[in-house]
Amino acid sequence: MGAGGIVVLGLDPGSRCTGYGLVCEVSGQVSLLEAGTIRTERETDVAARLGLIYSGVAALIERHGPSEAAVESVFVAVNSASAIKLGQARGAALAACGVAGVPVFAYEPTLVKKSLVGAGRADKSQVAFMVGRVLGCREAMAKDASDALAVAVCHLNRKRFLKLCGAS
Amino acid sequence: MGAGGIVVLGLDPGSRCTGYGLVCEVSGQVSLLEAGTIRTERETDVAARLGLIYSGVAALIERHGPSEAAVESVFVAVNSASAIKLGQARGAALAACGVAGVPVFAYEPTLVKKSLVGAGRADKSQVAFMVGRVLGCREAMAKDASDALAVAVCHLNRKRFLKLCGAS
Repeated sequence: MGAGGIVVLGLDPGSRCTGYGLVCEVSGQVSLLEAGTIRTERETDVAARLGLIYSGVAALIERHGPSEAAVESVFVAVNSASAIKLGQARGAALAACGVAGVPVFAYEPTLVKKSLVGAGRADKSQVAFMVGRVLGCREAMAKDASDALAVAVCHLNRKRFLKLCGAS
Repeated sequence: MGAGGIVVLGLDPGSRCTGYGLVCEVSGQVSLLEAGTIRTERETDVAARLGLIYSGVAALIERHGPSEAAVESVFVAVNSASAIKLGQARGAALAACGVAGVPVFAYEPTLVKKSLVGAGRADKSQVAFMVGRVLGCREAMAKDASDALAVAVCHLNRKRFLKLCGAS
């Protein structure tokens, strides 16, 4: 991105479906570059699924050259087995960022919601609505893609806030 | 590997240290190709750590061309946070196998021990001793490396067993 613009990659990793969203901010104007999902259900082998997540994220980084990535922090899961599965998907996605030298910032889910809707307990449809509004896009998009865009926008908001505070 | 030989990559992923071991079997004779650890403590950023695991495993695959990989299955962890961390390390390591098209086989920890020592509750030093004996190496090696070799040898044992049974 030239002209002082910044490109941020938002990620919402999952073992079956990993949402992604790339946003760009130029002179305070935020716009959508690309959003979608990396679907892995067609692969039965776990390593092949994780390979698809890695390659998918690596391709996005190569295509758009984000300088930073953002993801929701996760500390709880229904049980150990689902935590391992979720962790594996996150590991594959974040490894692609690490290999490309893109730093990843993690945000509490409540902070992501608060940053967009103004309430930490907002439901997913409210978050999706605000994501569409901020980015000026009217089409409906996959839930995982809109969650990924939400954390990317949250990251941009935090950067703007820190800049206003003179902290960055 | 020519002459009907098979190269297996054993992995013991962890967020701070990932053990690996490559073994090769030619005409029933198992030998050690390389074993060691991928250490990630020097990186404070999670994505950078996962990137090191991914790149380390990818480099091993490129160097030795294993046709299969083996890893211990994990279904329990102390808590969700440690399960996510462990899952992330596994995800980065297995994604490297997936991208390279190397299928990964998972074995219960008790089966790995039983396959080597003859008892599912053997302690780590007994497993390490038997790994050294099977592979004819006398030097002491890192615990994670010997655990990785153990699961690789377990995989070869299972293949031999299935072959004897005519199942493969």
